[in-house]
Amino acid sequence: MLKTIYTACRTCYSADYPINIYNSTDDKEKMLKLIDRIISSGHFSTIEHIQVTFAISNVSRSCTHQLVRHRHMSFSQKSQRYVKEKGQFDYIIPPTIDQNEELKKKYQDFMKDISEKYQEFVESGIPAEDARFVLPNATATSLVASLNLRELIHIANLRLCSRSQYEIRTMVKMMCEVLVKEEPWLEKYLVPKCKRLGFCNEDKSCGRKSNLS
Amino acid sequence: MLKTIYTACRTCYSADYPINIYNSTDDKEKMLKLIDRIISSGHFSTIEHIQVTFAISNVSRSCTHQLVRHRHMSFSQKSQRYVKEKGQFDYIIPPTIDQNEELKKKYQDFMKDISEKYQEFVESGIPAEDARFVLPNATATSLVASLNLRELIHIANLRLCSRSQYEIRTMVKMMCEVLVKEEPWLEKYLVPKCKRLGFCNEDKSCGRKSNLS
Amino acid sequence: MLKTIYTACRTCYSADYPINIYNSTDDKEKMLKLIDRIISSGHFSTIEHIQVTFAISNVSRSCTHQLVRHRHMSFSQKSQRYVKEKGQFDYIIPPTIDQNEELKKKYQDFMKDISEKYQEFVESGIPAEDARFVLPNATATSLVASLNLRELIHIANLRLCSRSQYEIRTMVKMMCEVLVKEEPWLEKYLVPKCKRLGFCNEDKSCGRKSNLS
Amino acid sequence: MLKTIYTACRTCYSADYPINIYNSTDDKEKMLKLIDRIISSGHFSTIEHIQVTFAISNVSRSCTHQLVRHRHMSFSQKSQRYVKEKGQFDYIIPPTIDQNEELKKKYQDFMKDISEKYQEFVESGIPAEDARFVLPNATATSLVASLNLRELIHIANLRLCSRSQYEIRTMVKMMCEVLVKEEPWLEKYLVPKCKRLGFCNEDKSCGRKSNLS
Repeated sequence: MLKTIYTACRTCYSADYPINIYNSTDDKEKMLKLIDRIISSGHFSTIEHIQVTFAISNVSRSCTHQLVRHRHMSFSQKSQRYVKEKGQFDYIIPPTIDQNEELKKKYQDFMKDISEKYQEFVESGIPAEDARFVLPNATATSLVASLNLRELIHIANLRLCSRSQYEIRTMVKMMCEVLVKEEPWLEKYLVPKCKRLGFCNEDKSCGRKSNLS
Repeated sequence: MLKTIYTACRTCYSADYPINIYNSTDDKEKMLKLIDRIISSGHFSTIEHIQVTFAISNVSRSCTHQLVRHRHMSFSQKSQRYVKEKGQFDYIIPPTIDQNEELKKKYQDFMKDISEKYQEFVESGIPAEDARFVLPNATATSLVASLNLRELIHIANLRLCSRSQYEIRTMVKMMCEVLVKEEPWLEKYLVPKCKRLGFCNEDKSCGRKSNLS
Repeated sequence: MLKTIYTACRTCYSADYPINIYNSTDDKEKMLKLIDRIISSGHFSTIEHIQVTFAISNVSRSCTHQLVRHRHMSFSQKSQRYVKEKGQFDYIIPPTIDQNEELKKKYQDFMKDISEKYQEFVESGIPAEDARFVLPNATATSLVASLNLRELIHIANLRLCSRSQYEIRTMVKMMCEVLVKEEPWLEKYLVPKCKRLGFCNEDKSCGRKSNLS
Repeated sequence: MLKTIYTACRTCYSADYPINIYNSTDDKEKMLKLIDRIISSGHFSTIEHIQVTFAISNVSRSCTHQLVRHRHMSFSQKSQRYVKEKGQFDYIIPPTIDQNEELKKKYQDFMKDISEKYQEFVESGIPAEDARFVLPNATATSLVASLNLRELIHIANLRLCSRSQYEIRTMVKMMCEVLVKEEPWLEKYLVPKCKRLGFCNEDKSCGRKSNLS
């Protein structure tokens, strides 16, 4: 990963062929130093050369309706048209409901009701693609998602913000953590936007950084 | 619209300045003839210079989850986080259910149940962004959507196909019709992909065009 | 323009239909206030609904090689394959050369030499697409370019920076000025990135804003 | 590569988690069969999950001005602003000139003239970014370029067409060959557009496929 980015950075400023730069024996520390300088100057195109792919499951359709709004990503998502739910569909419980026993019970019971209604429509001959109209935002879905490092940093900046919705924030956090485990140098870029800007540009700050007065 | 596209087409092949081409007095028929030749050759970039904007309402969240997968579009959509549903939420009834009195009644009653459950969670202090987890795919939504003509033709080619889901097919058909009323020359491009390819590339043809053997 | 952006902004937070919002009689000041708040929060997608088109001429091929790197734009550019240069080709003189009489003379004479060489190759039967290999970066070109307001702000932020190359900086400045004349509210966004960030993120500051220590 | 694409394809139609699909032991032939069916139906998004990176050198600035028009690619290119040419710059000779001894000699001599003129301007204190205005389209450049398989197929379809300019056609052909050596199943997709369409949509066919009458 580092070698490819380093080659991309060096190619812009060097008379040498990219393949020679790639095959040169620069040490890791030197590479990181250059990459850091380039990214700090906002020359993000150099990190587009690295694309990462995530296998995601157990997120709600609410969450993915937000996620697929990111247009520099590639998605392959479980279809509710072609995949019929058999038995109780999997679903997500928001923490505000999960931590209240009574509401949680009511929520789970209702998910059972919805599942039964869905099955009734299917058994009445309604195709899955129409029966799913009763399925809730809570319904769990799966997807394969790919994006380059520039887009990942952009998404982290937006979605790690406390104003971002809980579920997508958690999911993006997990995606970042998985990657940082393998590429620790990325950690400082995968932060909420206020850490990058130095101030909060939302209407009301969560307190991490102040609004500009 | 025509004048801008014509100027774009002519700029590629002319020694003259674009502004002079734009201000020249070419007649409509001549413009259409050139544009037609260019589009037929697949040089679609020339029609990217025209962007159109649609105000869309009364479509399901199912439909928009599909729609926002098109990445060359711009969207501003009603938020289920910030807009609380007051009273019965609006919803879409799929035709297969709408045309069966019994199923329709069952569907409508259940939408009422869901609405009540949503309100109960809201009244229990659950924020709208979490209460909406019980809202169904059927829930109506609104959005402003912009796209250029190249993307519109691409989307028409895909979504007017009989294999496309009923609701998004209907919506794209309406978008095309509204535009064709003002720009009739676009009609022949806003067709299912089989009409453009000359054959059906789906697994099973609907009969409009045959599969390649 | 304002009405479309305002409709897009309001659609996200309103239970009303976009078409009703569009047709409502909100006054300009109210619209500007909302738009300003939304853009300041970084929710740039709302201004993607406005696309603007520029007819550009008398810029060098150097300049356009840089310009066409912006991937959220649409371009139709004069072709050096299909448009043969007749007589002396038009060319750009960089200011550092233009302001020195002796160097300017040498430059102009050499452009004449290049033109003659180009014509000799053409007369020897070499097709324009190959004869143009001798044409210099200085060669003037024309193009039609379209982009939405989000991309225009992004480009202004990058290309109005003093580190940006003189010619593209001048061109982007002219594009911004033409637009600001018609839409003065845009002026405060069409600025070098340091004005947006509050600091300079280039290696060496030009002095307008300091580097972060 | 195959396993990722296969997982993406299967995820759309399966109730199973993507990670389980990825870890399942499906044989290569079965994977290829599914992938082939999906691509043939035009569902190209599944192959966006694979991005490939090329180190390219010894192509002309003419060629890269065309190449960087592809907007679904990432580029890092040798800068003529920051990298000063020392001694004779490298350049490309078009085949129509290369195969004629007399014209070739004239071309090479003129490249020497240009180089001398460039050096004179540099020695007169003109910065590299302005001196390069005399450098020709023929000047060799280097770049790192990344793109996903969908874009590569799209580019192959366009640029392997006989109407495409010789140099970019040759370059894209080499890119495809290098990749096909490692992934032979891709060969049938990396073809000129007429092979995909079944007919030629250019103004005049080269004879490989006929125009539609």
